[in-house]
Amino acid sequence: MMLDQVVLVAAVTVLGMMEQAYFSLKVIYARRKHSVSPPATTGPPEFERVFRAQANCSEYFPIFIFSLWVAGVFFSQALAALFGILYLYGRYLYFHGYAESAQGRLEPLYFSAKMQWALIAQSGLGVVCSLTHAYLGLDLMHSVTHL
Amino acid sequence: MMLDQVVLVAAVTVLGMMEQAYFSLKVIYARRKHSVSPPATTGPPEFERVFRAQANCSEYFPIFIFSLWVAGVFFSQALAALFGILYLYGRYLYFHGYAESAQGRLEPLYFSAKMQWALIAQSGLGVVCSLTHAYLGLDLMHSVTHL
Amino acid sequence: MMLDQVVLVAAVTVLGMMEQAYFSLKVIYARRKHSVSPPATTGPPEFERVFRAQANCSEYFPIFIFSLWVAGVFFSQALAALFGILYLYGRYLYFHGYAESAQGRLEPLYFSAKMQWALIAQSGLGVVCSLTHAYLGLDLMHSVTHL
Ligand SMILES: N[C@@H](CCC(=O)N[C@@H](CS)C(=O)NCC(=O)O)C(=O)O
Ligand SMILES: N[C@@H](CCC(=O)N[C@@H](CS)C(=O)NCC(=O)O)C(=O)O
Ligand SMILES: N[C@@H](CCC(=O)N[C@@H](CS)C(=O)NCC(=O)O)C(=O)O
Repeated sequence: MMLDQVVLVAAVTVLGMMEQAYFSLKVIYARRKHSVSPPATTGPPEFERVFRAQANCSEYFPIFIFSLWVAGVFFSQALAALFGILYLYGRYLYFHGYAESAQGRLEPLYFSAKMQWALIAQSGLGVVCSLTHAYLGLDLMHSVTHL
Repeated sequence: MMLDQVVLVAAVTVLGMMEQAYFSLKVIYARRKHSVSPPATTGPPEFERVFRAQANCSEYFPIFIFSLWVAGVFFSQALAALFGILYLYGRYLYFHGYAESAQGRLEPLYFSAKMQWALIAQSGLGVVCSLTHAYLGLDLMHSVTHL
Repeated sequence: MMLDQVVLVAAVTVLGMMEQAYFSLKVIYARRKHSVSPPATTGPPEFERVFRAQANCSEYFPIFIFSLWVAGVFFSQALAALFGILYLYGRYLYFHGYAESAQGRLEPLYFSAKMQWALIAQSGLGVVCSLTHAYLGLDLMHSVTHL
């Protein structure tokens, strides 16, 4: 595998790690602001929403990165990177929406969930094409990626 | 690296992501059923067991996928995919066992823990063989993978 | 990609998985010692600190591994493995420091955070060099890695 065949998804990965670091810093500030010292994880609703927003984004982060890479390698790097950027943008809105109100998390959640499903679908499609190519000798991949 | 050298572990990765998405949907349904609105994470024991079952599976998901890929690339793709499928099956039983009772999580937990340790052992063995090959010129890998 | 171009970061990945498994076992022992049965996650402060120490390490584990691999593939495998080992050592101190007192987690946290930022910086630098190489034809990579 050549580096330039994965450099776009690697770039989105780096952006994603920076976003996660940013969410973590926000939790640290919220802990200070609302005086919620570890190991406590409960406190005023304002704190708990920030805490849960980061926890929720962290929970899905590995799934996001795995789907980004499998889609990028087995389906289309450019498409995976595009949906990846949109996912990260949706998660940014989710974090800030959730920090404001529980209701505020919903719209961006639906958006980023759609981007996540799109990446999983691309991963699944790419893998199925590769499997049929490797084990049945059919080149579906060629037809699908040239849509 | 050729795509068909990793397509089986990629397929297990896609299955794993779909399983995680399924667990998340189950938490969302349990939140509705037991009226536990975010950011709350506590409620009736029935809810908390579903919530924790998904949290526990999410916590181990990255470790599982990393061990699957390192074992698949450095040891044996077919074996890694096999243990990977069994792990995911064990996690399915864990989730539903835990949702029913705390006791119900134990048997499938022991099973999936064994699959996880097997994958870590295969990763470790594969990496040690590769290290000795790269730095000492000994081809242990050849002998081990031809057992 | 040849296996020996990633075998060092794969080795650090295996060590990291073993460290995470060790932290999990510590939580299981703490649950027994302090009689905190799942799905409960609260109990005496001694338990909660062990529980949160493992939760915090798990939360950052994927970010750590992704940055390790992107830095190792796009920047320098030897440097990534070195900072990776130091990160894991810092997390070991963090876990035991946090288990003793909330204050005890801070010094090792700052240390492992620095290692984590170094890996993200190396990832970012490596990816930017690869992007400029792939799309602009400039070989910054060559100059940077030969500093
Ligand atoms: N861990 C999540 C799993 C399901 C999920 O992602 N839920 C969405 C929609 S209810 C969410 O925004 N959860 C808020 C949260 O995790 O705090 C949860 O507890 O809700
Ligand atoms: N985060 C886990 C780490 C250790 C673990 O995996 N424990 C197993 C056996 S006690 C489990 O099923 N935990 C239930 C849970 O995480 O809710 C915990 O809190 O227990
Ligand atoms: N989930 C973390 C995110 C931010 C973080 O990593 N905080 C550091 C410095 S306050 C920590 O050691 N947190 C302790 C913990 O997670 O229990 C938190 O709740 O604090």
